Amino acid sequence: MLARTCLALALAAAVALPALADDAKKSPTPKELLAKAAPTEWRTPDPQNLVYMDLPQGRVIIELAQDWTPAHAANIRTLIREHYFDGTQVIRVQDNFVTQWGDADGDDKKKAKSIGTAKETLTPEFTRKGGKAYPFTKLDDGDVYAPEVGFSDGFPVARDPKAGEAWIAHCYGTVGVARDTGAETGNGSSLYAIIGQAPRNLDRNLAVAGKVIKGMEFLSAYPRGGEPMGFYDKPEQRVTIKSVRIAADVPEAERTPIQVLRTDSKTFAAVVDAKRNRRDDFYTRPAGKIDLCNISVPVRDPSKK
Amino acid sequence: MLARTCLALALAAAVALPALADDAKKSPTPKELLAKAAPTEWRTPDPQNLVYMDLPQGRVIIELAQDWTPAHAANIRTLIREHYFDGTQVIRVQDNFVTQWGDADGDDKKKAKSIGTAKETLTPEFTRKGGKAYPFTKLDDGDVYAPEVGFSDGFPVARDPKAGEAWIAHCYGTVGVARDTGAETGNGSSLYAIIGQAPRNLDRNLAVAGKVIKGMEFLSAYPRGGEPMGFYDKPEQRVTIKSVRIAADVPEAERTPIQVLRTDSKTFAAVVDAKRNRRDDFYTRPAGKIDLCNISVPVRDPSKK
Repeated sequence: MLARTCLALALAAAVALPALADDAKKSPTPKELLAKAAPTEWRTPDPQNLVYMDLPQGRVIIELAQDWTPAHAANIRTLIREHYFDGTQVIRVQDNFVTQWGDADGDDKKKAKSIGTAKETLTPEFTRKGGKAYPFTKLDDGDVYAPEVGFSDGFPVARDPKAGEAWIAHCYGTVGVARDTGAETGNGSSLYAIIGQAPRNLDRNLAVAGKVIKGMEFLSAYPRGGEPMGFYDKPEQRVTIKSVRIAADVPEAERTPIQVLRTDSKTFAAVVDAKRNRRDDFYTRPAGKIDLCNISVPVRDPSKK
Repeated sequence: MLARTCLALALAAAVALPALADDAKKSPTPKELLAKAAPTEWRTPDPQNLVYMDLPQGRVIIELAQDWTPAHAANIRTLIREHYFDGTQVIRVQDNFVTQWGDADGDDKKKAKSIGTAKETLTPEFTRKGGKAYPFTKLDDGDVYAPEVGFSDGFPVARDPKAGEAWIAHCYGTVGVARDTGAETGNGSSLYAIIGQAPRNLDRNLAVAGKVIKGMEFLSAYPRGGEPMGFYDKPEQRVTIKSVRIAADVPEAERTPIQVLRTDSKTFAAVVDAKRNRRDDFYTRPAGKIDLCNISVPVRDPSKK
């Protein structure tokens, strides 16, 4: 009996994809795929690009889009290092749209907190035009809003090759730079995170500062504000931000270990495909397609791997 | 001076769309368009299809998709009328996915609340095949997931004309019927609402019970659950539902007045187009396209019109 089992196993091992009646039809789970990822498929974000925003509910980690909006990233670092954000608040939560934070008195010049040495206005960085090449892993599923979409170093990107323009898409978790009506009025002192259906009509109209890679569940669950655009009508509803720091400024032992799956890796492609064609005991009709903003880029705590 | 002004006004009134330098480039706001809607462009949902779910935070109103999933609507009405849901709870909130409610002990046969005369299993109504015609206002912007999309009596609908199938899309606010692995195991005793990026891969795998037309901001803002699929790990995190009723069973004077803009109306088409091509002091680059799930169907309180 044992011998026969061993023979069966030996034969099975010689087959690349053993046809197991039911399992053959099942797509692998992200967990299964990630467990097999090579160490080189994970990247450790540059701590100069990682923002720790500590809220009473927990830590939010944002990766700044240094290669896409460098002037905004620089101004945000200045604001953070001069402790501008410490004690500012979550001032707006508009359902199915954004959670926004900053100085509640920011629009009142007499009361507004000083932005210190940070710049008051910035040249818009709404799209990236021509110039330097950037990594791009194309998603072949199509897109309603742009001629091409894909990922670039973890960011969901849309582009128009004919116009020679590319931009980070406003997907769930994308962090943007709030501004007034003038295109140059956004300076990073007020930021927002997308908490609903991707409002892609914001694309190319605002600068994207980066994306939340951990802690979205804190930003998305605050009570919605009572004013028309979701600003809190009662000041006591605002949540006060304990501190905002750049990870590089935090002693290494106190940093939150985090790695992001490379979006140009084979495992990422497999994770995307497993979701696109998910088929298991529950999902019996795979979608066959996937929207850019339906793809979450896996992160992990490397200390627990 | 007065005479000249009057003349100027008279001339302006004779022009259908006066070309006002800046304003000519601006798209109208939904508010402006809705203010001009004809009374017949608003519909009053059948109170037999309206569900009032009273939560400690406020009232959620769901319109049942009677024409799409009639067997499920009937079973849900039975459950509601036998007070099944009163005292059940919000048991799961998975970030960027769903808020689910029902009996916390529903999976434990010994402890589960009786579903009374409601049916334990139902023939799946995941898609609508051939047969009776249904209203359909096509959206010409394309879709990643389906050959055609549009609206049918207020519901976001996707369809595959070749296969002769149509289904309500899982957009923000869509209410679905939770089930176990068997396709027939959903009976309406546990429901979920979409609270994040439209998970269109659920389409055709689950029955859609209807959609939230008021009160999404309560369902979307609960703390996310600590278990892997967002189920609450601490029973005290669950929110208890005060009552669930069919509007038709509520004395007329106590009903919440509500009307929904007809999705086959000119005003709805104009509202969609104003969002698709939004251009004003803030939005200087109109998207030119709009995704099915980026469109909210306007509702109003007719007592305040």
